[in-house]
Amino acid sequence: MARSVLGPEIERLIQLLAKLPGLGPRSARRAALALIKKKDQLLVPLAGAMSLAAERVKVCSVCGNIDTVDPCAICSDPERDARTLIVVEDVSDLWALERAGAMKARYHVLGGTLSPLDGVGPDDLTIDALVRRCASGEVSEVILAVNATVDGQATAHVITDRLTATPVKVSRLAHGVPVGGELDYLDEGTLAAALRARTPF
Amino acid sequence: MARSVLGPEIERLIQLLAKLPGLGPRSARRAALALIKKKDQLLVPLAGAMSLAAERVKVCSVCGNIDTVDPCAICSDPERDARTLIVVEDVSDLWALERAGAMKARYHVLGGTLSPLDGVGPDDLTIDALVRRCASGEVSEVILAVNATVDGQATAHVITDRLTATPVKVSRLAHGVPVGGELDYLDEGTLAAALRARTPF
Repeated sequence: MARSVLGPEIERLIQLLAKLPGLGPRSARRAALALIKKKDQLLVPLAGAMSLAAERVKVCSVCGNIDTVDPCAICSDPERDARTLIVVEDVSDLWALERAGAMKARYHVLGGTLSPLDGVGPDDLTIDALVRRCASGEVSEVILAVNATVDGQATAHVITDRLTATPVKVSRLAHGVPVGGELDYLDEGTLAAALRARTPF
Repeated sequence: MARSVLGPEIERLIQLLAKLPGLGPRSARRAALALIKKKDQLLVPLAGAMSLAAERVKVCSVCGNIDTVDPCAICSDPERDARTLIVVEDVSDLWALERAGAMKARYHVLGGTLSPLDGVGPDDLTIDALVRRCASGEVSEVILAVNATVDGQATAHVITDRLTATPVKVSRLAHGVPVGGELDYLDEGTLAAALRARTPF
């Protein structure tokens, strides 16, 4: 195909859609076609929603969450316990914890994990800002809700070290059997952790 | 979450993204976050590409293809053989055949297959327009490139019946072993068809 039959507008739409996580070249073509077929119900509203998000959404200067206001709705919510900070790697983890709805605390988004192999050092994360928030005296507990991966746990150790100079108590999420999980399918590490952390019944 | 922590703009973006084929609620959240994080590289360009596509892309009044011009680039290409029409169910099939690049013919997009259970009858497809194109005397061969599904083959039979009154020759795609395919993994119907249609070596 010398001049692609798709036309430059459709080609470009497919190329950009293929950059979304979870979409490859084939599914991007399917998505582009679905968008064009549902122009009024999907393509036009989605274009509008994207423009609006691009215009309004910003990163919270306090916690690193994304919202249309700065400080974000969580940081400025007076009903939330400002003395407890939940430290997460990414905004998606914050969203997941909010869906669980178990705790009305505030957050601190690290922006990733330490990863020497990928060239991510402490300065690439918001660890300094976290230490400053904790040193201010407003925070009494930091809950490390980082992923239970090697990088996540290494990051948790570094943060714990940095926070020893501040007056905060540091805790981390419990390890154990996922609710609804079957023991037979769980790895040995999780089972051993669940046994060690057994609770009275 | 009474007032969602995501904010209405991000909520709406996620809801609309979840309507794309291949994206569910979870992957729509991931996609929305990726878009917001890559605002200048992805969100803004994609919003622009979508607006442009919504504004410019239209359905070809001759063949049913989508393009920014009407008639589409294929229908108005003088180097294509106007005497051969390849009948496809959907624009995505047209794109697939163009990627194969095996034939410089023109197309006719049906817009689906006959499906009595789903309430899709002959009037919902562009069969009448196909018959008119074939009756005009400009077309000498119609190649039915519909899917090898029950609905596709039923549609092919109906089209063949309707075209007997016109002077065109009707053919269909060959059935056989996919190039690169392993016999062990093929169904019996395909193997039987490939044996019946064996060719001299």
